Parts: sequence; structure tokens; C-alpha cells
Amino acid sequence: MLKDVKKDAIKRLAYIEGHLEGIRKMIEEDRYCVDVLKQTFAVRRAIERLETRLVEGHLHTCIVEGVKGGREKQVLGELVEIFSVKNPAR
Amino acid sequence: MLKDVKKDAIKRLAYIEGHLEGIRKMIEEDRYCVDVLKQTFAVRRAIERLETRLVEGHLHTCIVEGVKGGREKQVLGELVEIFSVKNPAR
Amino acid sequence: MLKDVKKDAIKRLAYIEGHLEGIRKMIEEDRYCVDVLKQTFAVRRAIERLETRLVEGHLHTCIVEGVKGGREKQVLGELVEIFSVKNPAR
Amino acid sequence: MLKDVKKDAIKRLAYIEGHLEGIRKMIEEDRYCVDVLKQTFAVRRAIERLETRLVEGHLHTCIVEGVKGGREKQVLGELVEIFSVKNPAR
Repeated sequence: MLKDVKKDAIKRLAYIEGHLEGIRKMIEEDRYCVDVLKQTFAVRRAIERLETRLVEGHLHTCIVEGVKGGREKQVLGELVEIFSVKNPAR
Repeated sequence: MLKDVKKDAIKRLAYIEGHLEGIRKMIEEDRYCVDVLKQTFAVRRAIERLETRLVEGHLHTCIVEGVKGGREKQVLGELVEIFSVKNPAR
Repeated sequence: MLKDVKKDAIKRLAYIEGHLEGIRKMIEEDRYCVDVLKQTFAVRRAIERLETRLVEGHLHTCIVEGVKGGREKQVLGELVEIFSVKNPAR
Repeated sequence: MLKDVKKDAIKRLAYIEGHLEGIRKMIEEDRYCVDVLKQTFAVRRAIERLETRLVEGHLHTCIVEGVKGGREKQVLGELVEIFSVKNPAR
């Protein structure tokens, strides 16, 4: 993994973990469900932005190396799987 | 919030937090991006299952009380918003 | 179904069908995949907006009647199912 | 676009258009909203499967050619955009 991507990913994860801790407090304090849900939606969006960064790093390293190194069938197959699993409705 | 829903939500959050910690370790250990992404997808699915439980609890308490108590415009408006924000593509 | 919702839904469907026809032409003319994908994303967004309208109409008719008419278990169960199926990742 | 992918995409579009026509009839006949929504969810899933096929074709043609032909910055940038726009929650 690229050093920059790794550093950024760790930072994003720390933010997401803090956010989840806030959600747990909201639930313990019996806060209004609608407000809790708005926060869980925000956490999912944050995870998706993390995923976009990971994919970006993956494309510029493993995919480029795989395509140039004759392993395109394998690396592109994994990419289709990621795209498809990520897919909201299956 | 219903006592059962609250207890279940706290339990699900603990699981999600543990899962995220595992993902951080994977990133720190430079594990293959594709494997990391599969785990972040799993975490998002776990958050969505938590959301379904919260919505279920919300419907059987606040929505029923709101509709019977003459505040249907407000509580149904919030529900449309939840449905729409949750909406994957906008 | 409310008359207004029905009229609006039919109108939205006509738009979506026209959009899909445009996508078919793009594919027949061998247009760039990335441009085709941007259009299919837009169609999905249009379908989701249609769904939000249908849900809104459903809440203000069937849900209100069901809750007031003692059939809340059934109508709220269906709503949880809709919320959960709609759910991007399961 | 690969000949096979093109043929498959046209076939999938025809299926999707037929499905949408069925949904329009359901709405015109005032069918139960919940049943209509289940069908719109199914249409979105069909569109997503079409997208997966288009992406797969794109990877094995344009991406491979772009990476080998020194245009990796451009083609990978487009791919990140597709991944990110496709992203359910932003």
C-alpha cells in the first residue's frame, strides 16, 4: 500500500471509530432514533470515502503492475468482484 | 427506544467497533487492498443491519404514537427523509 | 394510490423509459463505456426518486389507515421489509 | 465495446424496458404500492448487473490499452470516478 494512502486510511479509521463511539453514547442516552440514524448514515458515507481512497491506491499500484506484468486476468477479475460486491443492489 | 432494541444496538455497535479495529490492523500490516475492501464492505453491511433494527423500533414506537396522536405529518415527513437519505444514489 | 402520486409516477416512468432508449442508442453506436455508465447511474437515481414518491404516498395512505385500523403489525412489517430490501448492502 | 458485451447489454436493456412497462401497468391499475416497489427494486438490480458487465468489458479493453499505452493517469482517474459515483452514499 502506498505510504500516503496508508496514512490517510489510518486517519479516516480513527475518525470513523470516534464517530461510532458518539453513536453508542446517543443510544445509551436514549436519543431520538431519527437523529441516531442520521449519524449511522454519515458513518457509512465516511467508510465509502475510505473505500474510494483504497481503490484509488490499488489501481495505481497493483492494477498497473498486474496489467504490465501479464497478470491482468487475475487483477481485473478481482476489480470486477469489488465493483460488483460494492454494488448496492444485487 | 425499546429496551430490547437498545440492548441489541449496543451489542451490534461493539461488534462493528471490533471489526473496524481488525481493519486498522490489516492496513498497518500492509495487507492486500482487495482483502481490506472486503472487510469494509462487511462493516457497512453490519451498520445497515443495525439501521434496519433502529427503524423497526422507531416504527413500532414513535410512528405509531405519532399517527395516533395527530402528529402524523411530522413523523411521516421524517420517515420519508430517512428513506430518501438512505437512498444509495441521489 | 393517491391521484397525484399516480400521475407523477406515470410521468417519471415515461422519463425513465426515454432515458433507457437513449442508453440503448449509445450502446448501439459504440459510445465510450464511461459515458454509458454515467447514464445508467442517472437512470437508477431517477428510479430511486420515483421510489421515494411511492413510499411517501404509501405512508400517508395505507400506513396511516393500517395503524389507525388495528393492522399496524402487518403494515409496519411491510415497511421494515421495504427499508431492508432497499438497503444497499445486505 | 466488445461484440459480446454489446450484444449482452442490448439484451439486458430489452429486459429492463419490458420490466418497466409492467411497472407502469401496475401503477395504472392501482396495484398495492409495496408490490410496485418490489418491482422497482428488481429493475435497479437488473441495471446494476448491466453496469457490472459494462465495467468488466471496459477493464479488459480500454483500461488494459490505456495502462499499456501510457495513458494510465486518465483511464484510472475515470475508473475512480465511476467507483465513487456508483458509491451509494456520498
